[in-house]
Amino acid sequence: MSDLEPTPRTTLRRLPARGHFDRATVNAILDEALVCHVGFVSDGQPFVIPTIHARVGDEVFVHGSAASRMLKTLQGGVPVCLTATLLDGLVLARSAFHHSMNYRSVVVLGDAQAVTDDRGKWDALQAIVEHVAAGRWREVREPSAKELAATLVLRLPIEEASAKVRSGPPLDDEEDYALECWAGVLPLRLTPGTPVPDPRMPAGRALPASVTMYARPQTELDRRG
Amino acid sequence: MSDLEPTPRTTLRRLPARGHFDRATVNAILDEALVCHVGFVSDGQPFVIPTIHARVGDEVFVHGSAASRMLKTLQGGVPVCLTATLLDGLVLARSAFHHSMNYRSVVVLGDAQAVTDDRGKWDALQAIVEHVAAGRWREVREPSAKELAATLVLRLPIEEASAKVRSGPPLDDEEDYALECWAGVLPLRLTPGTPVPDPRMPAGRALPASVTMYARPQTELDRRG
Repeated sequence: MSDLEPTPRTTLRRLPARGHFDRATVNAILDEALVCHVGFVSDGQPFVIPTIHARVGDEVFVHGSAASRMLKTLQGGVPVCLTATLLDGLVLARSAFHHSMNYRSVVVLGDAQAVTDDRGKWDALQAIVEHVAAGRWREVREPSAKELAATLVLRLPIEEASAKVRSGPPLDDEEDYALECWAGVLPLRLTPGTPVPDPRMPAGRALPASVTMYARPQTELDRRG
Repeated sequence: MSDLEPTPRTTLRRLPARGHFDRATVNAILDEALVCHVGFVSDGQPFVIPTIHARVGDEVFVHGSAASRMLKTLQGGVPVCLTATLLDGLVLARSAFHHSMNYRSVVVLGDAQAVTDDRGKWDALQAIVEHVAAGRWREVREPSAKELAATLVLRLPIEEASAKVRSGPPLDDEEDYALECWAGVLPLRLTPGTPVPDPRMPAGRALPASVTMYARPQTELDRRG
């Protein structure tokens, strides 16, 4: 697994210490993030749309209805930016100016291509369902041929990409450390609540493993404060 | 407060029932979301960057270093797309095909303008700090003239915008309701953890109201399952 080469478009001009180009960091953020935001240009106007993704190896997949404006635009091979962001905490400094967020984000630039063979589409859809809730694919009805045909799947190679990470306590101006206000980090985490059974399901059906075992993939890198 | 007029660019072509154009819905989503994703085009390439925002009236503000590539590009009055997304839950259907997410998102299209007067910048920065943690502004040192000069603030009018909301249980194909798998929603929420004091702060300092009272603004619309 070779690491990523910074390009002029992915090099961090400010705060370069926050930049990461190793695939382990990039992949871990893409895997933990439930959704990403996909940017594309149509008639000169940028659009940014939230969507579910899944990474498989050195590619990231998105999917949707074959009638979707975003997917129809993207399959034309136009430039795309796929950004995944994890919020890890509020950084509460002693000055308004040094307030910040702890976060991990990945930006992937490139051209997306439609996955045209059924096997490739099937595998990508399985990866997307498993990305959202590991183990779910084998609990549910698999796609029919008609459903597969109605779904557009796009692949984006992870070639030009970078991660950006901020962690740790606030960094205040030296003279501000004498101030008496509280400073620190309020950690944030996307937390699952109590599952809500479909009202059309008979009462008492046991929760499946995909729900009882639900967790995002975790890495060394995250939640250092 | 007049509501928003759908345009060809903000009209939902698919699933139009998910679209909302009333300002109350748009504003509530912008206010609850801690960060947004800003899309802009540079040399034909779209970029999507996560950033903190704050809404004041019918405008949304973003800020950053005067050296930021994004902000320098945006202040040229180029078309921008600002998208805020709240994840409310995993929608676990009986078929792979009907899996979905419950979410609320807002897309704002337009041209951003730099806020050039110090009073306008000050008010926007206060709104941004208060957006992240209500009550924090009065707990901390206010910006100096030098800090104000080093900060670029941009305003984007909320004129061409729409919200998109999915809530409620999965919608399965009629024949799939007979399947025996569990179906329902796993709610998700961005939850604060235990505050982590800055290691450079003397021990025992009391938590401030901005932390003990921390909560996102909530609306009628959210968390219906």
